[in-house]
Amino acid sequence: MKVEFINPFVSAASMVLERLGNQNTEKGKLSLKASPIQGNDVNTIIGVTGDVRGQVLYSMNLDTAMKVAASMMMGMPVTEFDELCKSAVNELGNMITGNAASELSCNGFNCTITPPTLIMGKEVVISIKNIQILVIPLLTDFGEIDINVALSDDEL
Amino acid sequence: MKVEFINPFVSAASMVLERLGNQNTEKGKLSLKASPIQGNDVNTIIGVTGDVRGQVLYSMNLDTAMKVAASMMMGMPVTEFDELCKSAVNELGNMITGNAASELSCNGFNCTITPPTLIMGKEVVISIKNIQILVIPLLTDFGEIDINVALSDDEL
Repeated sequence: MKVEFINPFVSAASMVLERLGNQNTEKGKLSLKASPIQGNDVNTIIGVTGDVRGQVLYSMNLDTAMKVAASMMMGMPVTEFDELCKSAVNELGNMITGNAASELSCNGFNCTITPPTLIMGKEVVISIKNIQILVIPLLTDFGEIDINVALSDDEL
Repeated sequence: MKVEFINPFVSAASMVLERLGNQNTEKGKLSLKASPIQGNDVNTIIGVTGDVRGQVLYSMNLDTAMKVAASMMMGMPVTEFDELCKSAVNELGNMITGNAASELSCNGFNCTITPPTLIMGKEVVISIKNIQILVIPLLTDFGEIDINVALSDDEL
């Protein structure tokens, strides 16, 4: 995992979260993991193709996801985590990944992202073949959001 | 959902499964669903970018996944669904999606696919924003494999 692939996600997440009114985004301790990794209550997966390939996974618990959704929807009260909320949480992942992909492209790694997919379930476990996964825990006003970056510029 | 996006998956799946020694692949009744859709024990997600964008999801129960893995590994006995098995099931999805993407490209829809991600868990539920999902149930010698195609050539 190249460090060049990490920083665009940290800076994009800080910027996007700040726009959402999140005052404090602290980066927790990074860790490098191999598959399988544990998911959380709410998981957004976005694929990346091009010079850099792989997946980026945003994981958070339901409470955090509801706060994110409320914030994305301009503070609309959220009592149930419905399809509208899921779409809002997916949009957060889409905005962060889109901004990070732009920065990666500026740095010479042209890449394109897929639309986001949201996965919920119990005891969710995720395996990505042949790619190490860098976990960036972000401590936000909404709660912890883990960005799991599984990207490589090797042929897989 | 355009019919042009469906046939490449059906023909690629039949071809790849036949190569694995699967004698009979029957196509069950197609259905069009909106999010959320139910996953199964074992789910492989592969993203698609380019003229056609979205995700393709291969879902099957654990028993079928173990049979698929054994077959991918040249009949090696499978007693536990470990990372090697997950990788083998992901590779099935990769082969089918890769072949389908080639056919889509031949038909004028250039597209690129992400590496596969495998998701396991209980009560897995999947939401994909703004894209209808076509479910192709394939009745194979291994058991039922559902191909969920969520692709669009619209700007999302």
